Amino acid sequence: MNRSSDEVRLADTNRVEAFSDGVLAIVITLLVLDLRLPEVPPGRLLSGLASQWPGYLAYFTSFHYVGVVWLNHHATFRRISWIDPPLHWANLGILFTAALLPFPTSVLSHALVRENVADARTAVALYALVGMLLYVSWFVLFHYLARRPHLSYENINTEFFRRERTRVAIGVFLYPAAGVLGVVFSPILGLVIFLMLSIFFGVTTQGLDERPHLRRRSSGH
Amino acid sequence: MNRSSDEVRLADTNRVEAFSDGVLAIVITLLVLDLRLPEVPPGRLLSGLASQWPGYLAYFTSFHYVGVVWLNHHATFRRISWIDPPLHWANLGILFTAALLPFPTSVLSHALVRENVADARTAVALYALVGMLLYVSWFVLFHYLARRPHLSYENINTEFFRRERTRVAIGVFLYPAAGVLGVVFSPILGLVIFLMLSIFFGVTTQGLDERPHLRRRSSGH
Amino acid sequence: MNRSSDEVRLADTNRVEAFSDGVLAIVITLLVLDLRLPEVPPGRLLSGLASQWPGYLAYFTSFHYVGVVWLNHHATFRRISWIDPPLHWANLGILFTAALLPFPTSVLSHALVRENVADARTAVALYALVGMLLYVSWFVLFHYLARRPHLSYENINTEFFRRERTRVAIGVFLYPAAGVLGVVFSPILGLVIFLMLSIFFGVTTQGLDERPHLRRRSSGH
Amino acid sequence: MNRSSDEVRLADTNRVEAFSDGVLAIVITLLVLDLRLPEVPPGRLLSGLASQWPGYLAYFTSFHYVGVVWLNHHATFRRISWIDPPLHWANLGILFTAALLPFPTSVLSHALVRENVADARTAVALYALVGMLLYVSWFVLFHYLARRPHLSYENINTEFFRRERTRVAIGVFLYPAAGVLGVVFSPILGLVIFLMLSIFFGVTTQGLDERPHLRRRSSGH
Repeated sequence: MNRSSDEVRLADTNRVEAFSDGVLAIVITLLVLDLRLPEVPPGRLLSGLASQWPGYLAYFTSFHYVGVVWLNHHATFRRISWIDPPLHWANLGILFTAALLPFPTSVLSHALVRENVADARTAVALYALVGMLLYVSWFVLFHYLARRPHLSYENINTEFFRRERTRVAIGVFLYPAAGVLGVVFSPILGLVIFLMLSIFFGVTTQGLDERPHLRRRSSGH
Repeated sequence: MNRSSDEVRLADTNRVEAFSDGVLAIVITLLVLDLRLPEVPPGRLLSGLASQWPGYLAYFTSFHYVGVVWLNHHATFRRISWIDPPLHWANLGILFTAALLPFPTSVLSHALVRENVADARTAVALYALVGMLLYVSWFVLFHYLARRPHLSYENINTEFFRRERTRVAIGVFLYPAAGVLGVVFSPILGLVIFLMLSIFFGVTTQGLDERPHLRRRSSGH
Repeated sequence: MNRSSDEVRLADTNRVEAFSDGVLAIVITLLVLDLRLPEVPPGRLLSGLASQWPGYLAYFTSFHYVGVVWLNHHATFRRISWIDPPLHWANLGILFTAALLPFPTSVLSHALVRENVADARTAVALYALVGMLLYVSWFVLFHYLARRPHLSYENINTEFFRRERTRVAIGVFLYPAAGVLGVVFSPILGLVIFLMLSIFFGVTTQGLDERPHLRRRSSGH
Repeated sequence: MNRSSDEVRLADTNRVEAFSDGVLAIVITLLVLDLRLPEVPPGRLLSGLASQWPGYLAYFTSFHYVGVVWLNHHATFRRISWIDPPLHWANLGILFTAALLPFPTSVLSHALVRENVADARTAVALYALVGMLLYVSWFVLFHYLARRPHLSYENINTEFFRRERTRVAIGVFLYPAAGVLGVVFSPILGLVIFLMLSIFFGVTTQGLDERPHLRRRSSGH
């Protein structure tokens, strides 16, 4: 049997998707390890659980955030027919910043539960930094795809990638801004804005509902 | 090579299944991290291990429960040919409630091992709450599918989704009921009822043994 | 597009394989979490790492053991064309006993490092129990497959499953025997025998190198 | 439906790739569990986080290292059409050495943060040892593939595997050399060289950008 070059290309994107699915599935599931048994004397479990509420909010925010990363990844990679080395590295950059997330989530959640304001400010700034890095990594990916039309299916308009690049550029600016608000006014406010940003990026995810008739480019390359 | 729109649709459900498989595989495997070395003086390992028996029961119950989630997910998604954004979010809702499970399992298991009744009641209530949320998320999914026949294969009767909706509605009511029994009478009784509920939902899983000749709908959409 | 019933069947085994791959990949990787930083005073890291050597042996033994489970799973499921509900449950049984493994590995490794003989005996017995349960779960699977020829590809001789059933029956007897030797003579000896058993089952894994021309049965069912 | 022998072979490499993707995705994501909340008094989180900087460098180095393992694995296995038992074991050897990585990463990161020079030297030597083992496992794989042309696609020149064998042999020598430099001069220097080695192997990864027209060998075998 011959494996045609088209099959090889498909296999390529398939395996990158499988690896990325694996990393994102693990990140989204590992977050639960930070919801721990509260350290309270016997008989005080209920109040101990209740006092951890900022931790639940941080958990939900980060779960939502990784869910949105996955939806974006899915909407993007179904338009890609061929992955070259720079695109591999851009994808690893997204996975790197996404895989980091349990760390700032844990730091923020503990700082909020312990109610030390200085620590909570530090933690909000750390979360904002990682959030910004994620959107920087998306920006790099979309910028590259917008300039390399031969990597996507023939009938995919690179306009899609340019619009996405603009959309994620908003995240590059809004995460630091949310961090500043959280540090200056209130760390809990910062966390609420992080959740709202995640909802915004979830609602504006593009290209999940289109059913494009994809066609490989024969041109160029 | 052209990728026909049908291929794209198939690829879509494939990748959602792969991501969901990943999350459920991780949840079911992470549960073991809560079976820990008992903290006992040297030479007392045997009695230490034996005294952890409610933890083993909680582990088995939660493992079974996630196994049933996977079987239901499998039986459901093999009937689906196309995933639109609301269905993506409904699926993320199921993954969210399933990924939460190690937390109440850990809380319940520790509370039962430590034998503080007030804490064990709190923990049973928490477990019942998460169990109910899971069945609420299934209810939302089946409700949506029952009303969107164009998302399933052409020859799939939406009656399937309506029956499943009824079945999971039972869980929405029985988990809180089990929680109340556990709080009022005995936390261990609550855990036993959780296991029985999971077995009930495992036994009544539908549609695994049918071999439908699936056909895509060309109508509508 | 129609999805023929054959495609559906294939998709069925594919997704079961993907879920099983996920669980086994996670189990084999989680084992490393039990290799911890030794708790020693500053400057004593080298001797601390060296004194943990039974932990490394336990890690290697369990890694090898899960690797063999995966090879067996792979050799078995490539012969299966259709999965019915009992086969789903038999597979979940194998995943359950495999997912348990980090627990006895951790218990055994800590008991051997702490050098308390009574505890090490307990730990060896626990490991032998879980090892035996794994082979019981394989026995159930092969017994079922040997009696349900319509679940495997048309040209697969059910003799394969009968031979495998005999092979795993050996494990059902040898793991408890190894446990008894470990308890009576020396826990380290027990661990060495566990490793030798795993190597034996790895060497005797069947059916990886055959290239059968698989054909679905049209008979029966 | 018949499953042709070609389909079976493809399925074979698919499942090995899926299992390997799973293991590597988990290893790369588990690394984050070692980025922990610094144990500092309330209000000192910022300086606590800052003083952990060698831990972040170790995290980045190991993330990059596993990313390179995945890219190499991907470039290698897309050339393979058939996996025999020794190749299965060689692949498990790579997964074993890769799955070990969170352990030396954790040891090195803690030793550098605690600033005990003797411990840091021990940790650098351990990291170099595991790095060397990984390249030994790659060497074994490429050596086997270079001598078994019938396992790769018909039009794949085994020259590819011979060049890769030479490339990874460099790692077998350079990791111990970096370890010696780290032990003799400075542990941080050792870590920086580990990162540079990983970048070198990332940059020299071969065969990701070729689009070979793969063809199965009909000869021999």
